[in-house]
Amino acid sequence: MKDYIKVIGFDADDTLFINEPYFDEAEEKFCALFEDFLSKQSISQTLFQTQINNLPFYGYGIKGYILSMIEAANKISDGKVSIKVTEKILEIGKELLQKPIVLLDGIEDTLKQLHGKYKLIVVTKGDLKDQHRKVSLSGLGPYFHHIEVLSEKDEIDYEKLLKRLDIDASDFLMIGNSLKSDVLPVLNIGGTAIHIPFHTTWAHERIDHEIVHDKFYTAITNAEILPLLL
Amino acid sequence: MKDYIKVIGFDADDTLFINEPYFDEAEEKFCALFEDFLSKQSISQTLFQTQINNLPFYGYGIKGYILSMIEAANKISDGKVSIKVTEKILEIGKELLQKPIVLLDGIEDTLKQLHGKYKLIVVTKGDLKDQHRKVSLSGLGPYFHHIEVLSEKDEIDYEKLLKRLDIDASDFLMIGNSLKSDVLPVLNIGGTAIHIPFHTTWAHERIDHEIVHDKFYTAITNAEILPLLL
Repeated sequence: MKDYIKVIGFDADDTLFINEPYFDEAEEKFCALFEDFLSKQSISQTLFQTQINNLPFYGYGIKGYILSMIEAANKISDGKVSIKVTEKILEIGKELLQKPIVLLDGIEDTLKQLHGKYKLIVVTKGDLKDQHRKVSLSGLGPYFHHIEVLSEKDEIDYEKLLKRLDIDASDFLMIGNSLKSDVLPVLNIGGTAIHIPFHTTWAHERIDHEIVHDKFYTAITNAEILPLLL
Repeated sequence: MKDYIKVIGFDADDTLFINEPYFDEAEEKFCALFEDFLSKQSISQTLFQTQINNLPFYGYGIKGYILSMIEAANKISDGKVSIKVTEKILEIGKELLQKPIVLLDGIEDTLKQLHGKYKLIVVTKGDLKDQHRKVSLSGLGPYFHHIEVLSEKDEIDYEKLLKRLDIDASDFLMIGNSLKSDVLPVLNIGGTAIHIPFHTTWAHERIDHEIVHDKFYTAITNAEILPLLL
């Protein structure tokens, strides 16, 4: 692929830096608030279902997650708690918004080696302000030509992005931890994709079939992509 | 200015379509929920202060507004209401996210006349998903080369945007209803600005001094900008 790739898109959450474990931790705290009402499993399930139902309204990101926690709290408690509990939920949310940025092992060295040889961009989804904050605090910003926060990562979103940045899909490689968001749509529009699995994946991002495609690669760590590109 | 302007940025909320009146309506509903606790003025003041305090966390947009309503509800009621009231607040929020898009008088004709003669872009702030939804539903999307949702509209944000889109500040005109967000930062980086006041402005966007600048213009309606540009 080093012969034809010119631009590399990196997903941010759980590709550049840790994200999902912070949501898991927040969910633990949320479940603990309502342990008198339901089992942990039922609370998690209610929260997940609320989040999915709310995606058309709120999209991805922490703010929508906090709103879904509050809506789920209503359902779980059947309205039988004081509004005070939302103070604790808002606090869980604000903690999430201030989590330290922990880089994935080796990512800075990987970017350093690719920088200058390829045009590097960040392609992520979530809340605009929060994603910019994270990339900025990560210290990785200078390696990237552009940071794009999308509402969705469907084929049409990648197509629009590539068109706007004047990139041919055949010159584009996307790297990320989500088969659903970082790999499948990019392969479908003629791009190349490398999947670097992360140890935990949000249920909404999971797919249940195997991908077989001549432009699809898997790497166990980000360092493993270097032999493909250098 | 028709001799030197090449790119025109339009603010979205209350420049292309109605926005602030919807927030005012939501605030009325919020105040009504707590009329047993405080005067309408005190409720509004608490909500406004909460919003401002939360800007560093949530940024602009409806999702942060809903979260601030819930936080303010805690303060106003001193925790003495059921969590059920948050159902009503979440409903106010979801209504806001689904409001019809009402174009400002004459805006489509104005854009039609400028389209092709200038490169037109939308420069707005708020929630990514919501702003894209509104521009898309407005039917005005095809007039615009690009839609940019920013976390902030400070000088540095405009500078980065113009750099990325390869636009010289001296070629750039920004049009909007906020002196603070659409006019001052653009003048300060060497651009041109037209202020089109809207009948209601969020307190946070107000400034209390007059602007005197040779690249600053005011128009009462969007149609009034045409003689300056055609």
